[in-house]
Amino acid sequence: MLSAKKKLYKKKDYPVEDVRFYLEPSPAVLLTSQYKNERNVMTLGWYTIMEFTPSLIGCMISGSNHSFELIKKSRVCVINLPTVKLSHTVVDIGNCSGINIDKFDKFGLETEKGHKINAPLLVNCYANFECRLYDSKLVKDYNFFIFEIVKAHVATSPKYPKTIQYRGNSHFIDSGRNFKIPSLK
Amino acid sequence: MLSAKKKLYKKKDYPVEDVRFYLEPSPAVLLTSQYKNERNVMTLGWYTIMEFTPSLIGCMISGSNHSFELIKKSRVCVINLPTVKLSHTVVDIGNCSGINIDKFDKFGLETEKGHKINAPLLVNCYANFECRLYDSKLVKDYNFFIFEIVKAHVATSPKYPKTIQYRGNSHFIDSGRNFKIPSLK
Repeated sequence: MLSAKKKLYKKKDYPVEDVRFYLEPSPAVLLTSQYKNERNVMTLGWYTIMEFTPSLIGCMISGSNHSFELIKKSRVCVINLPTVKLSHTVVDIGNCSGINIDKFDKFGLETEKGHKINAPLLVNCYANFECRLYDSKLVKDYNFFIFEIVKAHVATSPKYPKTIQYRGNSHFIDSGRNFKIPSLK
Repeated sequence: MLSAKKKLYKKKDYPVEDVRFYLEPSPAVLLTSQYKNERNVMTLGWYTIMEFTPSLIGCMISGSNHSFELIKKSRVCVINLPTVKLSHTVVDIGNCSGINIDKFDKFGLETEKGHKINAPLLVNCYANFECRLYDSKLVKDYNFFIFEIVKAHVATSPKYPKTIQYRGNSHFIDSGRNFKIPSLK
């Protein structure tokens, strides 16, 4: 479960232009959103980094998700990065709709307020990226939202969190060996 | 090196609507393109699955890449999936421009012709996905190309190729443990 008596991570501000370090490998993330008093959380795997500055990220959010309407109206969301410990919670969140239930209560998700936007951060995720809608040009045709990451909170350790990636049909991969090869820009 | 006397993989046709199995985790891929007699290959990490049917994938191709112009003109390309053995070739390809050299010759890349499109497949990559430009609406503002994968060639083994993911500043991760958790759609 995502909930815990004590916080799993101590976090620091992180440069928004460097978020690719965590998001380029496309780990499964939890997208939180809020419009007025309604909030939701969904699992997301289809997204890509689009630019360093402004720090842009393009996300596919299916119109069948309850989050779609909340984000269209509020124009903000938070991308939360869970680690492998939370795999089952990530799956459970992805397997139910927030239309009739509050998933935060159901799964005991501890939250805190966004610093720059009005949407909840998931405290026990490794990182939280606060996003504002930057361009909605492809929302109508593709459900593709381009967000600007306006604030990034990243745990101070471990340096290389073990994240998970989804590939369909219940198959996951966790992040493997970290290594450097000089020097791809 | 990517070249080899004998072919590294035996491949089969693969359903284009199932390519997320390989591409959702966003491994570093090699994008090949051709316009008239000019061809090129580049390293790509910024892309996302966008739809099952048609099989859509959105790719960020910087305007500073030689491939950008070739693909804009030819409206086709191939996404080739290298494995960890080819890490250094992936880096080398990403570190030079094809404007004055033929990278296929320079790096000894064995190719064969696309089956449905006119662009080279990299024989010794684990998989090859032939793409046609589907929507260029975001090319002008973001260099974001939406391609349709029209033909997929995937190696018959191993089932779980060890791929690599890039995260900036020369840092890579290879794909880790494969596991299943029922049942995220």
